[in-house]
Amino acid sequence: MIPIDILVWTGVLTFAAMGAMAAIERRFDLLGVVVLASVTAVGGGSLRDVVVGQLPPAIFRDERLLWGVLGTALAVFVLRHRLKRLRRPIYWLDTLGLGLFAALGAERGLDAGLGFWGTIFAGAVSGVGGGVLRDVLTGEVPGILYRNRDLYATAATAGAATVFALHRLDPSHMTLAVAAGAIVAIVTRIAGPVLGLRLPRG
Amino acid sequence: MIPIDILVWTGVLTFAAMGAMAAIERRFDLLGVVVLASVTAVGGGSLRDVVVGQLPPAIFRDERLLWGVLGTALAVFVLRHRLKRLRRPIYWLDTLGLGLFAALGAERGLDAGLGFWGTIFAGAVSGVGGGVLRDVLTGEVPGILYRNRDLYATAATAGAATVFALHRLDPSHMTLAVAAGAIVAIVTRIAGPVLGLRLPRG
Amino acid sequence: MIPIDILVWTGVLTFAAMGAMAAIERRFDLLGVVVLASVTAVGGGSLRDVVVGQLPPAIFRDERLLWGVLGTALAVFVLRHRLKRLRRPIYWLDTLGLGLFAALGAERGLDAGLGFWGTIFAGAVSGVGGGVLRDVLTGEVPGILYRNRDLYATAATAGAATVFALHRLDPSHMTLAVAAGAIVAIVTRIAGPVLGLRLPRG
Repeated sequence: MIPIDILVWTGVLTFAAMGAMAAIERRFDLLGVVVLASVTAVGGGSLRDVVVGQLPPAIFRDERLLWGVLGTALAVFVLRHRLKRLRRPIYWLDTLGLGLFAALGAERGLDAGLGFWGTIFAGAVSGVGGGVLRDVLTGEVPGILYRNRDLYATAATAGAATVFALHRLDPSHMTLAVAAGAIVAIVTRIAGPVLGLRLPRG
Repeated sequence: MIPIDILVWTGVLTFAAMGAMAAIERRFDLLGVVVLASVTAVGGGSLRDVVVGQLPPAIFRDERLLWGVLGTALAVFVLRHRLKRLRRPIYWLDTLGLGLFAALGAERGLDAGLGFWGTIFAGAVSGVGGGVLRDVLTGEVPGILYRNRDLYATAATAGAATVFALHRLDPSHMTLAVAAGAIVAIVTRIAGPVLGLRLPRG
Repeated sequence: MIPIDILVWTGVLTFAAMGAMAAIERRFDLLGVVVLASVTAVGGGSLRDVVVGQLPPAIFRDERLLWGVLGTALAVFVLRHRLKRLRRPIYWLDTLGLGLFAALGAERGLDAGLGFWGTIFAGAVSGVGGGVLRDVLTGEVPGILYRNRDLYATAATAGAATVFALHRLDPSHMTLAVAAGAIVAIVTRIAGPVLGLRLPRG
């Protein structure tokens, strides 16, 4: 069994690398690369904690992850010309992070006593909130709102709903509910392009 | 007397419909329509609760309104080609929601012990904050900052200031102060175009 | 010795004037000028208080500063055609405010029990957060992310790190640590163009 900490680190650092790459594409300076990596990596969970009222956000209680984010941003900056071949593995690691944070975020929502929509919000924001903040800071309309072939926020929502439903059925097996929620989110995202699914558009 | 709950529901669902329409105009996908409807409908009150420190936001304590928002977003999405004739009634319902939420938001600010500016902030953000968040997410400069012929945020500010002043004069009649504040906001917005009022520009 | 209150007022009102000028350049209306002045002046410290969990934000506890912000916004609006010669003094006053708020924000982070990164966040957001919110509301990518010749956020970060380090060395001299942090931030920003320093770019 892979310890949960390794999965969390993998997800956070992947999000950080994607934020750093987005900053480099836009020719931000080194500080902008570090800021965008941090916002993408920990902005979603922090936004969740701010709205749920668990302050200061969890990320500030154990700062080792933030050192990892800084190291990742610097590494991506230095190696920026050699990273194009990483697009494919990053897609998979990003999907892992999405599912994991959606499920863990839903758990935090349930811990805070939230109901169905509150839990969906907590899970979805944990999974996609960092990317939304990144898009807003780079002057773009958040991709989750219109990229109907990439079931990204849909996957996070499905994962969080799974955690809520399983916890409602049997509150004593939260770990199982979280694992199932993460898997539902990951499978939903992967199944989208495989099955040619897409959301209808306005 | 119309019960307050019916007015709140009317205002929230009107804001949700306007958010859904804005998303459809931009060809967002179905998830984007639901997200933008939710942000427009409940983002202002939630932002107020986050800043005032009443967490989690009130909207998560009784989730029936959020089911109404979801239903509204789906209905607008399905009926999107037949809604153009609704522009006129929506203007009036939006004005009702603006006045109502500005006054109720000011009341929440007073409850939290805020002073004059805090109360203005709480009222104005409750009335216009959802629209501002919607504009930011759709990549637009918030209309309240420059549309000087539409006294929208001005009306919310006037309504909140009215609640503050009447509450200061006589703290025992809060309901009356809220009703008067809502009416002042509604009249201010309606009076703008009728009297040809407009704010000076930079 | 200049009392700290005079410095804080100078910094806040300078930020307010810069926000008002940015609004006027974009031809916002009078309400937009007041809103953008307020967001620029007090948005950074308020965002810090929201994330750190000290709610409602300090700015609402003593509202005299907000009256000063309103007065500044109105004065800038009325005198808008005569303010071009003020660019130079505003640069210096802005640098003062940046250093001061970065150092005072770091102090607030330490008071809230944050560690290194939390203190950096609290200080940097206090110094540059209002400008970032102003940029987002005016539809621009925040300048701190890419203007690599203006060591603005870098200076705030250096100042906050200085406060953290000196406080760690000797917790009994917080005032000295804050003063040193402010000076480090101010010197960093001034030294940038003088020495031709710039951050590397992606």
